[in-house]
Amino acid sequence: MTIDDAGKAHDGWSSEALEALPPIDVAFGNADGFYSPAVREFMTGILKSPALDWFQSAAAGIENPALVMIGQKARHYTTNHTQAEAMAEWALWQALDFLRDGRGHRALQAEGKWQRTKAREIRGSRWLVVGYGSIGQAVGRRVTALGGEVTGLRRSPGPAEGAARVQSPDTLMAQLPRADVVLLCPPHTPETENMADAAFFAAMMPDALFLNLGRGALVDEGALMAALDAGRPAFAALDVTRTEPLPADSPLWRHPKIAITPHDSSETPGTVAGADETFLANLALYLGGKPMKHLVEPAAFLAG
Amino acid sequence: MTIDDAGKAHDGWSSEALEALPPIDVAFGNADGFYSPAVREFMTGILKSPALDWFQSAAAGIENPALVMIGQKARHYTTNHTQAEAMAEWALWQALDFLRDGRGHRALQAEGKWQRTKAREIRGSRWLVVGYGSIGQAVGRRVTALGGEVTGLRRSPGPAEGAARVQSPDTLMAQLPRADVVLLCPPHTPETENMADAAFFAAMMPDALFLNLGRGALVDEGALMAALDAGRPAFAALDVTRTEPLPADSPLWRHPKIAITPHDSSETPGTVAGADETFLANLALYLGGKPMKHLVEPAAFLAG
Repeated sequence: MTIDDAGKAHDGWSSEALEALPPIDVAFGNADGFYSPAVREFMTGILKSPALDWFQSAAAGIENPALVMIGQKARHYTTNHTQAEAMAEWALWQALDFLRDGRGHRALQAEGKWQRTKAREIRGSRWLVVGYGSIGQAVGRRVTALGGEVTGLRRSPGPAEGAARVQSPDTLMAQLPRADVVLLCPPHTPETENMADAAFFAAMMPDALFLNLGRGALVDEGALMAALDAGRPAFAALDVTRTEPLPADSPLWRHPKIAITPHDSSETPGTVAGADETFLANLALYLGGKPMKHLVEPAAFLAG
Repeated sequence: MTIDDAGKAHDGWSSEALEALPPIDVAFGNADGFYSPAVREFMTGILKSPALDWFQSAAAGIENPALVMIGQKARHYTTNHTQAEAMAEWALWQALDFLRDGRGHRALQAEGKWQRTKAREIRGSRWLVVGYGSIGQAVGRRVTALGGEVTGLRRSPGPAEGAARVQSPDTLMAQLPRADVVLLCPPHTPETENMADAAFFAAMMPDALFLNLGRGALVDEGALMAALDAGRPAFAALDVTRTEPLPADSPLWRHPKIAITPHDSSETPGTVAGADETFLANLALYLGGKPMKHLVEPAAFLAG
């Protein structure tokens, strides 16, 4: 069964219009569902379903209130982590634009001035990735392949794909002064809220870059702007902000040392295809009665 | 022996000032030499030397008239190709800024508008690298590591590091319509002069990116601007132009679909270190009486 933009249900095989939403046992909550004009019918159908057996989310996180409601209802809930690939390219993009002095080059082009600018490389750069989950590892693999050195921080030890080392979050303050690029992508929890504060930024190098691919609430945005104004770190690129959408009058928009993207780092055709592949792979496991990938414990939703 | 910015020679070990330039047997022509205020003394010393046995260039190319003069004089002439690494990161930077819609995002930020923009990824993109030498391969290795597919074009068959395939330059017109990114980096010869002309651009996809890391003379710049205006390709990034420095009144500066960098794609600390490493490695071979790396045949300079 699919739902069209007008909120009308259609048979999944024949595309024939249905009188009403049938009971839903399995649902795939992809971007088409959550960003469609029929998101209300989509959610209602899921939440009113008498026996929702499995929900496949296209998102990696589970904090969104709508997802929490679904998670509390679904017998099985699975997440998707393929958006990490597109997000990792966002990190490379922002890092290269900073290291290459994109702003300086664009200003010189606007003036018609042929003036060489010294740039830096990802090769040989040192990255600190705070939160070494699927996003952190997707970044780590790329940075390592490009000749950079990656330190990942996460609570659980284990294999460290793409990282020269994975260390405990306790070492954060000791690691910050050694990183050319600091990327934030840990889960948002009471412990990580506001973790990037005045002391955090004061520990960074003056020519370092700060990236946030996690959640806006991880960052004390006032402290960030004050730190940039004081010259340490050199620049920040944020795909997430504390208030989203970011209000037009927010000083973050106009800060000369901040690049903002509207939480769209994962918005690529590759991400859509990846979520479909995750759903289809889990569907095969589901129909075969085998354990699906990226299952979330029901307790995770009750706790929230 | 070193030469200071005032053109004064100093003993290499004691740094003591010398009365005059001593005869030069071996010289290392790095950026410090060619971009220093004493470039004239540096060149004079080399060209007046009675027996210049070996010149190590920090450049990859040998077309520069000063280098041709040195090449005609030196018994051994070696080039350096480590700048390819920094240049390859330039290509990634420009590709990501295009695929991610950097211009669109920056315009929205300037307006304070939170509006998601669809982006594309290097992962899954198809690259055509015209001229698969040291620069092409440095790009190919990176694009392949990021999940892109690379086709290299070069005259000589052989191993194809970083490329899914290496084909003959004859296949150029057949390959152009299949590439998301077309990178030009062949040597500048009578055959490659103006190779990127109206027919070349007309064969590209409307949403493709054109990159030039080779020489400005490879491109018919009028044809490029007309092609961009006609909507095919979508964008061009040029690190080289036909006239350098590019005059302030050149329409290339102001074209909305062209990004220009002032032939500084290799200007990184990593490139300086790489050239030093090449010189030191060749110096060890030279002193040991062994064949040096990246030797250029003397005939290459007589032909020019």
